[in-house]
Amino acid sequence: MENKYASRVALLQSAMAEKGIDALIISNTDPHSSEYPAGRWCQVEWVSGFTGEAAEIVITANHSGLWTDTRYFIQAGIQLKGTGIALHKTRVPDQVLIPEYLATALKEIPSHPVRIAYDGLCQSVERIKELRDALSAAYGADGYRLVDLPDFLSEFWKDRPAIPATPVTWPDQKLFGETRAEKLEWLRKEVASRGCRYMLVTALDEIAWLLNVRGEDIDYNPYVISYLVVSDNGSCWFVRDADNVPRVPEVSVTGYGALGTGLESMAGEGGSLLVDPSTLNGNVYDLLERTFTSGRIVFGTSPIIVRKAVRNRTEITNLRKAHLMDGLAMEKFLHWVELNVKSREPITEWDASVKLTELRSETEGYHGNSFENISAYGENAALPHYSTPVSGSAVIEKRGLYLVDSGGQYDFGTTDITRTVPMGRCSRKEKEDYTLVLKGMIDLAMAVFPKGTAGCQIDALAREPLWKNHRSFGHGTGHGIGHYLGVHEGPQSIRQNFNRQPLLPGMVTSDEPGLYREGKYGIRHENVLLCVEDGDNEFASWLKFETLTLCHIDTKPVRTRLLTDEELSWLNSYNKRVYKTLSPYLDPETRLWLKKKCRKLSRGWFE
Amino acid sequence: MENKYASRVALLQSAMAEKGIDALIISNTDPHSSEYPAGRWCQVEWVSGFTGEAAEIVITANHSGLWTDTRYFIQAGIQLKGTGIALHKTRVPDQVLIPEYLATALKEIPSHPVRIAYDGLCQSVERIKELRDALSAAYGADGYRLVDLPDFLSEFWKDRPAIPATPVTWPDQKLFGETRAEKLEWLRKEVASRGCRYMLVTALDEIAWLLNVRGEDIDYNPYVISYLVVSDNGSCWFVRDADNVPRVPEVSVTGYGALGTGLESMAGEGGSLLVDPSTLNGNVYDLLERTFTSGRIVFGTSPIIVRKAVRNRTEITNLRKAHLMDGLAMEKFLHWVELNVKSREPITEWDASVKLTELRSETEGYHGNSFENISAYGENAALPHYSTPVSGSAVIEKRGLYLVDSGGQYDFGTTDITRTVPMGRCSRKEKEDYTLVLKGMIDLAMAVFPKGTAGCQIDALAREPLWKNHRSFGHGTGHGIGHYLGVHEGPQSIRQNFNRQPLLPGMVTSDEPGLYREGKYGIRHENVLLCVEDGDNEFASWLKFETLTLCHIDTKPVRTRLLTDEELSWLNSYNKRVYKTLSPYLDPETRLWLKKKCRKLSRGWFE
Repeated sequence: MENKYASRVALLQSAMAEKGIDALIISNTDPHSSEYPAGRWCQVEWVSGFTGEAAEIVITANHSGLWTDTRYFIQAGIQLKGTGIALHKTRVPDQVLIPEYLATALKEIPSHPVRIAYDGLCQSVERIKELRDALSAAYGADGYRLVDLPDFLSEFWKDRPAIPATPVTWPDQKLFGETRAEKLEWLRKEVASRGCRYMLVTALDEIAWLLNVRGEDIDYNPYVISYLVVSDNGSCWFVRDADNVPRVPEVSVTGYGALGTGLESMAGEGGSLLVDPSTLNGNVYDLLERTFTSGRIVFGTSPIIVRKAVRNRTEITNLRKAHLMDGLAMEKFLHWVELNVKSREPITEWDASVKLTELRSETEGYHGNSFENISAYGENAALPHYSTPVSGSAVIEKRGLYLVDSGGQYDFGTTDITRTVPMGRCSRKEKEDYTLVLKGMIDLAMAVFPKGTAGCQIDALAREPLWKNHRSFGHGTGHGIGHYLGVHEGPQSIRQNFNRQPLLPGMVTSDEPGLYREGKYGIRHENVLLCVEDGDNEFASWLKFETLTLCHIDTKPVRTRLLTDEELSWLNSYNKRVYKTLSPYLDPETRLWLKKKCRKLSRGWFE
Repeated sequence: MENKYASRVALLQSAMAEKGIDALIISNTDPHSSEYPAGRWCQVEWVSGFTGEAAEIVITANHSGLWTDTRYFIQAGIQLKGTGIALHKTRVPDQVLIPEYLATALKEIPSHPVRIAYDGLCQSVERIKELRDALSAAYGADGYRLVDLPDFLSEFWKDRPAIPATPVTWPDQKLFGETRAEKLEWLRKEVASRGCRYMLVTALDEIAWLLNVRGEDIDYNPYVISYLVVSDNGSCWFVRDADNVPRVPEVSVTGYGALGTGLESMAGEGGSLLVDPSTLNGNVYDLLERTFTSGRIVFGTSPIIVRKAVRNRTEITNLRKAHLMDGLAMEKFLHWVELNVKSREPITEWDASVKLTELRSETEGYHGNSFENISAYGENAALPHYSTPVSGSAVIEKRGLYLVDSGGQYDFGTTDITRTVPMGRCSRKEKEDYTLVLKGMIDLAMAVFPKGTAGCQIDALAREPLWKNHRSFGHGTGHGIGHYLGVHEGPQSIRQNFNRQPLLPGMVTSDEPGLYREGKYGIRHENVLLCVEDGDNEFASWLKFETLTLCHIDTKPVRTRLLTDEELSWLNSYNKRVYKTLSPYLDPETRLWLKKKCRKLSRGWFE
């Protein structure tokens, strides 16, 4: 029997031949450049079976390839087996990205111009420009054609999901510390300061933040699939199932498909329009060019991005509350795991995952998880983005390490936490790795740095303890986290990539070094950090981190001789704080258990 | 009496008015973009009296300003007093660089196009492009004119030095581990691989490296002022005082002024020419455009830059020898300082500087210092680039800290070392600062990192110990160092600036964190590091540093409680190695003294 995905590739190749297409790009995003698209846009998975988040496929007459990064190499190796689709590695020194690949791959084709097709709804203007630049350099301006085939997969994908249209909710605005009226007023000033009268907002998290609105259109991401136009005297929200959207005074509501008409009528009034090319899709750009003819289209980074990433006081207060409640659920969960692993009835990774969600869902203001739980025992944890299968997941045994990476969406904010915990005896190497990863997490958490410092400039603090022992991990150290929004949020990050965005007071990032030994085990420790002011002096204005996450770190596998006094003291005072903060809310049994877990760790006599 | 420099600015302003010039840029470089130009091109100093290395001046009808970076703020504050020249700070968060400044400063001028003049010999094509981009955006393509006035200062600067023409020497090629014939053959292949037939080499250090030639045209930098054209079948060196240059078979020699004729005759033969825009001056570029008409001019980074920065085996062996000899001179010097400060006859910073040069000059293969000795006592050391005055320099007293930053040019390589040493009692704060700076230096020296890591990604390792205590320094942590060439060399660096160049095995950089308390004291510890391989495993190919510098670090001011066990052990084993390596070559008295200095440091009982 032929592989299902190999057949789909063959199907697409014959359709390409019919239409005279030399290369077809299949992306894994939606019309809003969302990192986690709804099922309708899980196009890479439909074509290849690969379920990782970050991937793109290119199909030519005689080759099909999938591009993904270091995080997914192991997973892609497994999932692509038998599909005939080759893995093209990214974030490696000798990477060849898709634009460069296409610049050489089609050289042999006799009929020029070469024709390259994609779904314009699912490619940002920025990505299309990169493609154009590479192709122009390779084939000359007349040597290639880009062909926009919106929604082309629908023809082959018979049961393709529809565009989601879940209920829209307008949470109490007190939760956000700023009303949508205030946010819109601020945005109008920003837009005016760039010489524009309009802004087209296309990113779903930006719309949700700006309007203080939430939905459930995308798993784990409380967004509403929509476009928003803010003008100097109003704002118009283009949203699916508009008739059933509850009205608020600050925004007029119309259908998702009416964007073109809306733009046309605005254009008639003159004035320029600001739009961010990184989240504008090629199809809507063409629409803009056709309809918005009387004004200028100004490309610029959305002013919402940085503003959204800087928490106000209300958000910070709420976020601390979210982490407290999340920590309680986590402690109950870890206690449950420990008890059940010791019991006669074996539990699996999936059982644990279900239990964790159940515990979180009992929390006040809980709306769902912020991403799919990663519940991974032993060698499964060596896949940094392991997806726990519903049936056939591994039994958690009474030895080695269990890793759980999870988070919640609450009224009070979004959480993200990873704990790796010993289920019984650990090997010397497991303990060493466990301690070195922890050392990196602590070193970053303790960092102090001058204003103006970007995440990539302090990323090495979390890596050096591993590097010094010739160990390393292939993912970023920290990502921004939205506020009851996406668990991944820009513009800041703490990773090796050169990202010039300075860390600002009020920004929230994860701190999650790891270590993965294929076929053996995986370790990751993750806390969430809030960037805060730390005084001024003659040298600089200083910043540091406040650790928001509240869940004990198991000290059993820690080899104290690998920690400095300062690191050991951080660990002890962190666990002490966890116990002190959480214990009043715990039942006596869990409290006692946690007390033991948070006991002060001392150096052994013979170290 | 009016300030001399104020008068010079006034003189230039009236000349500008005559010629219809709205803004005049005065740079501090020569026609080869040298970092340290010969006296003829110390134009900023002639106009303003400012003697720092990195500076530029802009004069308009009603303003004169000097742009320089954090390293020089204190010095500029002193030297610009009374000149009427304003300080424009760079490498600060809100910096306004010259192109941006000019983009707004001339808005008020009624007569457009605005006219901006500079000496085209002393502005690189790259800088001119930055200027053009900013001015076009501000005034439109037709709203400004750039006016090249080569050597225009000569009209006013009556005793301006001539272009230097010191003797050219061809050292024994065995010293370099590669012959010029081999280097030229390698370069020809590189040039051909970029589709070119010629390369115009304009950077003086690149020419010296490529031809294995040295001169004395520039203080501290053993270069020969010249241009070099390498073609597929020969090479032609355009050099001042060509008649007296000893001939070698691999290169034909002609006059410095014959570049135009040379290019013209080459152009006649067809083929493209490669040139690096970062060291090509605007004047020679115009010459290229006029003369080199039959071939294409290809701008690209010179392939020599990276190759030159990666030491071969012979260079590494020689460099270790250079550091051994340099260390001996330093130890003799530090011993002498200690003895003389304690004696009845007071010694000054200048006396010490003279003595240090004398001791270095006794070394085999010594050609001179690699930069002007910085011999600074007490508060003078708070100026990171203090220039010790010949007369009136400070007496070195029996207390506080003395800083000496110096280096030598030897047949065997170039050295650069800073030691800060206690002259007697030090305050608690001096000791703390001393230890924290040392901690940063040690942490960087101990770093391990995967191949592909750039200096800016590990720079924070040297800064974090200071940052954590809310202290900081405003200069880079490490610069590349040439091999019997310039003491500053690219492309690698270890600093906050986003420089993508990875550190490669064989590259040499300094490791020199510091701390400066204005009006009080300054501390800097500097060793030189060689990047070396450190094995491969499943995670990465690893690199680390070998410390080349051999000179003890005074442990007296060290507060051991601020060091981790690992750092303390590094310090002890470093001093042990210094003693073991140097002692066989020292006289008994100095040997005994050094033995005491290198004694193992232990933690106090009560720490």
